[in-house]
Amino acid sequence: MAQKPSIPKGTRDFNPEEVSKRNYIFNTIRSQFEVFGFQPIETPSFENSSTLMGKYGEEGDRLIFKILNSGDYLSKVDTELYDSKDSIKITSNISEKALRYDLTVPFARYVVQHQNEIDFPFKRYQIQPVWRADRPQKGRFREFYQCDADVVGSNSLWQEVEFVQLYDAVFSALGLNGVTIKINNRKILSGIAEVIGAQDKLIDFTVALDKLDKIGEEKVKAEMIQKGIPQSGIDKLQPLFSLTGDFGAQVSELKSILNTSEEGKKGIEELEFINQGIESLGLKTAKLQLDVTLARGLNYYTGAIFEVSAPEGVKMGSIGGGGRYDDLTGIFGLKDMSGVGISFGLDRIALVLEDLGLFPETVTNTVNVLFINFGDAEALASMKAIKKLREHGISTELFPDNKKTIKQFNYANKRNIPFVVLLGESEINSNTFTLKNMKTGDQESLSFDDMLKAIQQ
Amino acid sequence: MAQKPSIPKGTRDFNPEEVSKRNYIFNTIRSQFEVFGFQPIETPSFENSSTLMGKYGEEGDRLIFKILNSGDYLSKVDTELYDSKDSIKITSNISEKALRYDLTVPFARYVVQHQNEIDFPFKRYQIQPVWRADRPQKGRFREFYQCDADVVGSNSLWQEVEFVQLYDAVFSALGLNGVTIKINNRKILSGIAEVIGAQDKLIDFTVALDKLDKIGEEKVKAEMIQKGIPQSGIDKLQPLFSLTGDFGAQVSELKSILNTSEEGKKGIEELEFINQGIESLGLKTAKLQLDVTLARGLNYYTGAIFEVSAPEGVKMGSIGGGGRYDDLTGIFGLKDMSGVGISFGLDRIALVLEDLGLFPETVTNTVNVLFINFGDAEALASMKAIKKLREHGISTELFPDNKKTIKQFNYANKRNIPFVVLLGESEINSNTFTLKNMKTGDQESLSFDDMLKAIQQ
Repeated sequence: MAQKPSIPKGTRDFNPEEVSKRNYIFNTIRSQFEVFGFQPIETPSFENSSTLMGKYGEEGDRLIFKILNSGDYLSKVDTELYDSKDSIKITSNISEKALRYDLTVPFARYVVQHQNEIDFPFKRYQIQPVWRADRPQKGRFREFYQCDADVVGSNSLWQEVEFVQLYDAVFSALGLNGVTIKINNRKILSGIAEVIGAQDKLIDFTVALDKLDKIGEEKVKAEMIQKGIPQSGIDKLQPLFSLTGDFGAQVSELKSILNTSEEGKKGIEELEFINQGIESLGLKTAKLQLDVTLARGLNYYTGAIFEVSAPEGVKMGSIGGGGRYDDLTGIFGLKDMSGVGISFGLDRIALVLEDLGLFPETVTNTVNVLFINFGDAEALASMKAIKKLREHGISTELFPDNKKTIKQFNYANKRNIPFVVLLGESEINSNTFTLKNMKTGDQESLSFDDMLKAIQQ
Repeated sequence: MAQKPSIPKGTRDFNPEEVSKRNYIFNTIRSQFEVFGFQPIETPSFENSSTLMGKYGEEGDRLIFKILNSGDYLSKVDTELYDSKDSIKITSNISEKALRYDLTVPFARYVVQHQNEIDFPFKRYQIQPVWRADRPQKGRFREFYQCDADVVGSNSLWQEVEFVQLYDAVFSALGLNGVTIKINNRKILSGIAEVIGAQDKLIDFTVALDKLDKIGEEKVKAEMIQKGIPQSGIDKLQPLFSLTGDFGAQVSELKSILNTSEEGKKGIEELEFINQGIESLGLKTAKLQLDVTLARGLNYYTGAIFEVSAPEGVKMGSIGGGGRYDDLTGIFGLKDMSGVGISFGLDRIALVLEDLGLFPETVTNTVNVLFINFGDAEALASMKAIKKLREHGISTELFPDNKKTIKQFNYANKRNIPFVVLLGESEINSNTFTLKNMKTGDQESLSFDDMLKAIQQ
C-alpha cells in the first residue's frame, strides 16, 4: 500500500549535484593519497561484533549499530536469560555482527589477518562510510564517510613530515588555502603531567587543557583543581597558557618547562624533527602550528597528534585529524606495530567549500548537450549524431519523448544543460545542426564537425 | 585481549590490487553512464524497515538484514508478545531499520520523496553496496555492489535503444568484446500465455520456459503439464522451441504464433522498434539477440527484458540485466511513473576480466618510484625531489627507515615498483640521481629533469 516515504533520522539522500561535489572532494583526496604512495583497501561494512565491541569505550559500544541474527534467533536465547529481558545481555545472544564504527579498528584487524600477505611498511588509504547511533544534530550524522590514510610498520618520523605535506597538498588542491595544521605530541602531554605531579591524572589533565580555547584559562585551572591536580603543579603550567612566538620560540619555552622529564624531552625532539623537515621542504598554502592543548582521543595516540582547522574567518570545527599510535594492532594480538595516520572530515570540508564558493563550476555540469525530439525519424538521425558526440566523451542525451519544444527547452534550462541541438527535417536535408548556446541564447547552423568544435570549446 | 581476527561469512576484504581492479571497472561504467547523460544519486545504507519489507516477497523479507534498535529496546516489547518468543513478530518491535537489499526500491522511494525537486524524465545512476542474508557460496556474497542506471518518467522506447548501446559501450570500453545482449518482452510472454490458454498461469509458464537452456525441451514441457497447462496449448508452443535465423526471421515466426493476441502484437512492435534502432545505429562489439525464454523477475517487468551474457567460451552466468517496469513508484503512492533500467554485475565482470587477462597492467601499478633511505640528511634531500615528482603527478615514496639497502630493494621488488632512486652523499654532491629501472636492471646517473623524463616515459 501507499506509504509516505522517508529515511531514518541521521541519514541522507544525496542528489546528483551533491554526489558530484562529494566525488570531487573524494577524487582530489584519492589522487593525492596515490601520489603519496598510499594504496586503497576496503573492508566489509559489518564486522563480527567481537572485533568492534570494547574498542571504543562503553559509550562507543552503545553507539555501535548491531545487526540482528537471521532466522529464529530468539530460540537460541536460553530461558533464564530471556526471562531477564535484559537488553544489553541479550544483545550478544541475538546479534553477532555490527556495522563499522570507524576505519581504524577494521584496518588493525585487516593488518593482523593479512599480515603474511602485506609488505611492511604498509601505506594504506580507505574511503568508506561508517555508522554511529549518535543523537543526530546539525553536522552530525548516523552514516558518514571517513577518508583515512595510515602507515603501519615503521617508527620513522618522516611519515609525520609526509602527513603534514599530504594535508597541505590536499587542501591546496581543493583551493582551500590557509588551513592551520596544529600539531602536538602525547609525550609532551605526559611530560607536563609528570612535571606537575599529575602522571596518574593524565586524562583528566588533558581533557581540561583541551578546553582552553572554549572556556578560557581560569575555568581550565578550576577544572584541574576539581580533578585533584595540586595548585603547585598548576602554577608550573603558567608558561603553557602564554606560549607565544613562532614554532621555535614556543619549543624553547616548552623545553624549559620539561627539562626534568625524559619523555617530555623526547616529545620535543620529535616535534622539532617534524618542524625542521617542514621548514626545509616548505608548504604550499597551509601553516604548521604547535598547539600544546591539542589532545584528541588521547588514550589512543602515543606520539604526534594532528588537527586541521579551516582558514581564519571560517567557523567550523576541525576538518581533519590524526596521530601516531604505537600499538595499533596489539588488540588483535600483533605486537610492536607502530601506526601513524590522518583523516579528512568530508562533510565539514564540503560545507567549507560551499561557504567559500570553492567548488569548480564544472563539477556539477554533468550533461553538456540535449537533442530536441521532433519524432522518430528525427530522433534516429539525432541518435546517430549523439553516438558520435559520446565517442568524443561529450555527455549528450536525446529528450526521450516528442513533446512540445518549449517543454523540452524548459527541461534543458532547469537542468542547466549548456547546449541544445535542433535536428529537424530541414536540418537533416541540409546535413546541418542548429546549435543553441543556452547561456548566450546564440543559435547557429553548423556542420557536425563545427558543432563538435563549438561544444568542445 | 588477543583474538584471532576474521570477518563475517559472505563478506570480503579487498586488498590494494583488488580495489584498483574494481575501481577500474566502476570508473569505466561511471564514465559511460555520465556520457549517456545519467546522473549519480546515493541513498542511505539503511532504510526504514517499512520501506523495504514486503517488496521482495517472503523470501526477500527473510534475507533483509535488520538493525537492532538502540538502548533498552526490549523494554518496549509488550509482555504478551515477549512471552510468545516469536522471532518474526518480535522483530518489528525491536528493529526499525534494515540494510538496503537492492538499489531499485530505494530509488523508487527517492523519486517519490523528492518528486518536487526532480526534472523528469530522470536519468539516474547509482553504484553502492547492497546486503543480503543469503547462504554464502562461490560467487554469492552477503555484501556486494550493484551498478544501476535507470530512467523514470517516460515511456519512450528510445531509452531501451540507449540501454542496449550503453551495455555495448561499457563492455567495449572494458575490452570485453562479443557479449550477447539478450532481449525479450513481458508482453510477448503474456501474449503466448494467452494464446495457449494459460493467462492465469503466466508465472508457472515463464518459470518453466526460463529453464529451457538448462533442462531442455522435454523437461520444460513436462513441467508445464504438471502445472496444469493443457497439451493443446503446449502444442501451439512448438515453433517457440525451434526459433531460428536472425532477429527479423525470429520475429516473423513469433508474429504467426501471436497473431490473435493484442498484447503479444504490442510486444512484437516494441521489440522491432528497438531492433531497428540498433540496426541503424550499430553496435561496437556486442550483439543483440532475441530470447523468448528470457523472463527474469517477471512480476516486476512490464515491457522489455534484458540480460547480458559473457562472450562465448566464458563460463559465467549473466553479467547484467534489466528491463522496463511500468509502475516503479506505485508502491510508494506515485502512480503512472514508468521506469526502465539496467544493472551491471560487478563481481562477475571482475571474474571474467581476470580470466581473460583484460585488466590493463597500469591498473595495479600504483607506486612508480621509491627513494632509498640512506639516513636523515639524504632523506631530506630525497624528500625535496619527491615533492617535485609528486607535483608532476608521479606516485613516489621514500622508504621511511634507514634499513639495509637490500631490504629496501626487496620491498620495491615485492611491491612491483618500477623505479628506484638512490640519492646518497656522492649524488647529492654532484647534484645527480641514480635511477634504477627495476624491470631491465639498468641504472643511470641523471639530472633531476632527465630523471623526470625517464620516469614519465
